[in-house]
Amino acid sequence: MIHPTAIISPKAKLGKNLSVGAFTIIYDNVEIGDDVVIGSHCELGVENHLCDESPLILGHRSQIRSHSIFYSSSIFGDELLTGHRVTVREKVRAGKNLQIGTLSDLQGHCLIGDYVRFHSNVHIGQKSNIGNYVWIFPYVVLTNDPHPPSNLHVGVEVKDFAVIATMSVILPGAIIEEGVLIAAHSCLKGVAEKDSVYAGTPAKKICETSRIKLTDNSGKSAYPWRKHFHRDYPSDVIKGWIED
Amino acid sequence: MIHPTAIISPKAKLGKNLSVGAFTIIYDNVEIGDDVVIGSHCELGVENHLCDESPLILGHRSQIRSHSIFYSSSIFGDELLTGHRVTVREKVRAGKNLQIGTLSDLQGHCLIGDYVRFHSNVHIGQKSNIGNYVWIFPYVVLTNDPHPPSNLHVGVEVKDFAVIATMSVILPGAIIEEGVLIAAHSCLKGVAEKDSVYAGTPAKKICETSRIKLTDNSGKSAYPWRKHFHRDYPSDVIKGWIED
Amino acid sequence: MIHPTAIISPKAKLGKNLSVGAFTIIYDNVEIGDDVVIGSHCELGVENHLCDESPLILGHRSQIRSHSIFYSSSIFGDELLTGHRVTVREKVRAGKNLQIGTLSDLQGHCLIGDYVRFHSNVHIGQKSNIGNYVWIFPYVVLTNDPHPPSNLHVGVEVKDFAVIATMSVILPGAIIEEGVLIAAHSCLKGVAEKDSVYAGTPAKKICETSRIKLTDNSGKSAYPWRKHFHRDYPSDVIKGWIED
Repeated sequence: MIHPTAIISPKAKLGKNLSVGAFTIIYDNVEIGDDVVIGSHCELGVENHLCDESPLILGHRSQIRSHSIFYSSSIFGDELLTGHRVTVREKVRAGKNLQIGTLSDLQGHCLIGDYVRFHSNVHIGQKSNIGNYVWIFPYVVLTNDPHPPSNLHVGVEVKDFAVIATMSVILPGAIIEEGVLIAAHSCLKGVAEKDSVYAGTPAKKICETSRIKLTDNSGKSAYPWRKHFHRDYPSDVIKGWIED
Repeated sequence: MIHPTAIISPKAKLGKNLSVGAFTIIYDNVEIGDDVVIGSHCELGVENHLCDESPLILGHRSQIRSHSIFYSSSIFGDELLTGHRVTVREKVRAGKNLQIGTLSDLQGHCLIGDYVRFHSNVHIGQKSNIGNYVWIFPYVVLTNDPHPPSNLHVGVEVKDFAVIATMSVILPGAIIEEGVLIAAHSCLKGVAEKDSVYAGTPAKKICETSRIKLTDNSGKSAYPWRKHFHRDYPSDVIKGWIED
Repeated sequence: MIHPTAIISPKAKLGKNLSVGAFTIIYDNVEIGDDVVIGSHCELGVENHLCDESPLILGHRSQIRSHSIFYSSSIFGDELLTGHRVTVREKVRAGKNLQIGTLSDLQGHCLIGDYVRFHSNVHIGQKSNIGNYVWIFPYVVLTNDPHPPSNLHVGVEVKDFAVIATMSVILPGAIIEEGVLIAAHSCLKGVAEKDSVYAGTPAKKICETSRIKLTDNSGKSAYPWRKHFHRDYPSDVIKGWIED
């Protein structure tokens, strides 16, 4: 299950039942759990001067799709799932079942909770602090430099269940509270209040998220989304969401 | 003309005069027409659980540039032309001479007409329905989820000769009528009327497209663009455009 | 230091102490200086019908990170530094120590001065003319077609020390004067005056850049940035900045 063209360092620590595609390179400082699938043309465990001696750690049952690049000195929980050609730099600390879409670029030095979903082409700046069950959609950028270029990096904080829609920019130091929805093509500065919708450049509060109705004619609110959207979450988590 | 490092399944159906670059992989479920050129570091025929048993079909005289990834269960007409590192998922049905720019990401499950041009870094959401002779410029996103995240996917419709300029977001269910121009950095909701210009967030109608003059001092209208722009279209098509 | 799986044309002219990663291809028309590091999965010297007979020239002490693609007929000064998966087309003429971030796409046919920095995922249209010490941040697009699609290409001009923040579009023919700051998520048309801040769609002048203070409580202005930000510039250049 390891393709003969793959190049794997004998120093890498590999779990049971590992699958590695053609033309993939695994460097020295990598630890991979059991039942992991790595696609073709990947590079795992790239080093730079910002890495420390800690390895890239991938949990059990993870899948890295082809053409992806991961640096060393990052830790991912079990069941990491990526699209193609993701780039993930050093010093990411991520929880369980993170999903990273095709072309996404994690600049490293950030914290990510459990069950977070990045759709395609998301850019996560350094010092970002992302909670659990967060959704970030295509072409969203989390920034960190308040007056670029500078040596100051003030990350963005995104709390549990928040949603950032397509092509929005989150400015340095912004705080997105629990359950917030940032509408598509917005630019947020400052604090977005809990369970509220923000839109525009600069983004302003439009309404409570509960005002947005499902388009299925049920008359029900679309938010909190955990009341109706359950794909790929574990059944015990969903049970809690329905009952809370 | 097939590089010795390329890995090609014996089950793949290959046309005459095929060229395949180094370190490229062609999986089982692929059918390629005659006179096709595939660059290096590509993957053709990737499978996932959303593919059916149908193959990836590439027409005659196609060119796939390097580092590109195509899934199975999609059909492309003759003379497909791609840039580098495009990602194309399952269940795309595209007509003749589609051009897909570097870094573009087609999420699959969409319809595309003849002679459509995607410039670099275009994101085509699932359920998109794109007509003929459409132009989509860099960093445009066609979305599909009316209240993300949800299980509802309502695609965008883009009709013949429409143009979407750089870094615009088209919201779920939007309809862009024939000959429309969406200005750069806009966010469109709802219906854009035929031969009209829309700009802003949210995008509003600015004027008829005929009001935009060529900047060559000829005093002629820049739209419909088919009256003056003919590069890479077949001569019989151009003849019809000039005479209509 | 040249990986045995790398494929290097005997016609390519290679400097001393060259390092080349696995699965990288170097074609015929390439000239590489001394002490250069090329990552894995790259392609250097790709040809198309717009290339002339001139080679891709990479200066001394350059580093090209993995999965990058460079065409022939471009010249880069010494100490070029790239992220991963950059795409650089033909007929770029760039000065010393250009930095190109991950996923950036240079469409070729452009001029770039010394010590310019492109962060991740920057799109540089053809006919762009970029001065020295310029900074361009993620998801910025420099456009060139005044009424797309057309055969007219009117590039953008960006002068010394200018800064374009995340996800801004610069419209065809725009001129960004020395020391300008274009705020994040803006769309600029026309001329941006020297040492001024522009924001919005369409972008308007907000204030002089000197009005923006450092967030370190020093009370000092954040611009001109060269007064306080010196990372990776040569000491003689920094000396001039401090004294001017």
